Amino acid sequence: MTTLPKAIILLSGGLDSATCLAIARHEGFEPVALSFDYGQRHNAELVASRRVAEAFAVRDHRVLRLELGTMGGSALTDSSIDIPTEASEGIPVTYVPARNTVFLSFALGLAEVVGADAIFIGVNSVDYSGYPDCRPEFIDAFETMANLATKAGVEGHHMKIHTPLMHLTKAEIVQTGMALGVDYALTVSCYQADSEGSACGVCDSCRLRRKGFEDAGVPDPTRYQAA
Amino acid sequence: MTTLPKAIILLSGGLDSATCLAIARHEGFEPVALSFDYGQRHNAELVASRRVAEAFAVRDHRVLRLELGTMGGSALTDSSIDIPTEASEGIPVTYVPARNTVFLSFALGLAEVVGADAIFIGVNSVDYSGYPDCRPEFIDAFETMANLATKAGVEGHHMKIHTPLMHLTKAEIVQTGMALGVDYALTVSCYQADSEGSACGVCDSCRLRRKGFEDAGVPDPTRYQAA
Repeated sequence: MTTLPKAIILLSGGLDSATCLAIARHEGFEPVALSFDYGQRHNAELVASRRVAEAFAVRDHRVLRLELGTMGGSALTDSSIDIPTEASEGIPVTYVPARNTVFLSFALGLAEVVGADAIFIGVNSVDYSGYPDCRPEFIDAFETMANLATKAGVEGHHMKIHTPLMHLTKAEIVQTGMALGVDYALTVSCYQADSEGSACGVCDSCRLRRKGFEDAGVPDPTRYQAA
Repeated sequence: MTTLPKAIILLSGGLDSATCLAIARHEGFEPVALSFDYGQRHNAELVASRRVAEAFAVRDHRVLRLELGTMGGSALTDSSIDIPTEASEGIPVTYVPARNTVFLSFALGLAEVVGADAIFIGVNSVDYSGYPDCRPEFIDAFETMANLATKAGVEGHHMKIHTPLMHLTKAEIVQTGMALGVDYALTVSCYQADSEGSACGVCDSCRLRRKGFEDAGVPDPTRYQAA
């Protein structure tokens, strides 16, 4: 029996990270999934991440509790800030300060502990929300830093940050995932899903997702909240 | 009344970070202290961080709970690994995977939330323990990444990672701190301090600290455990 190389997959339970997991499997990695409980408004995302991990037979799925919420500063973790229902200019209020930096840092630590040389993150610079930490130049800089931060770097391994969705449209992400067997009904993308995981249909994330299915010519399996 | 520029200070409660806090104050910053409860073997460090923050009249001191311990991989968070009592070659077992990367990432998020353009971390490349994430090239790479990760970078601010101890010997750190009024009796450096904060005297961190006081020609105020 061959041992597959391990990869850490940052798994939020949304459309993008589920597709990332499918791609990592397809590329021959043994996935170690990492999710965060960071004071999101609901835990539908975490429930979705467990369903998605199960669907891809992930044997090691870790959920870390963080206190991002106590830092404030984002509509995603601070209930005093309203979630916008229209696209806005610049960096939106749903931006969580340094979120991808924090998530990738934990992924880096876990990679070192389990002996993985690969980290997958579903960031995207096409149909994206305008977050600075989704850009390719950020990822490149993180990878450079990661290789100086760790034993791996010192001992001559190379830690690679994989961003297979970076240059895909949402429609292409959906088509890629469908081809690899992702059941998008299991995923939750909405910023304000209810406790059953039904989506609002109006937040930025819902609108990007809905358009993705439309453009891909695929029926949208998302459960929406009753109006 | 002038408003001082804010700086995030990573404050462990040890000798180095206490000195860093004193330096940040001396350089005219309003310190926002950030400590972590990350499954250390004892909480003497956290108690010390509170004492040190109080001594320097820090008005905003945040303690974040993290689950580094659940990731395993270090003698500092995994009680099944013994703390070594002699210097070793290479990267020691007390190394916590990606710890400074994780800590700096949270500092970066907090800096963005409170509007600070400066982060102080007490890393040192002279009398240090051989951790890869204490090297100047790591700090430089983190700073580059940080400026791509955040609103600050996008909006033209520059986030600066200050490492005032980087090139000082332990004796020089002690002398600097004494000149700035640090009471080192408040600090705890030991990897296995007891619940009162008394030090073992034999771990790597204790040996570096003790030598620092000796070389500085300063009485060592550390309380050691009864043999």
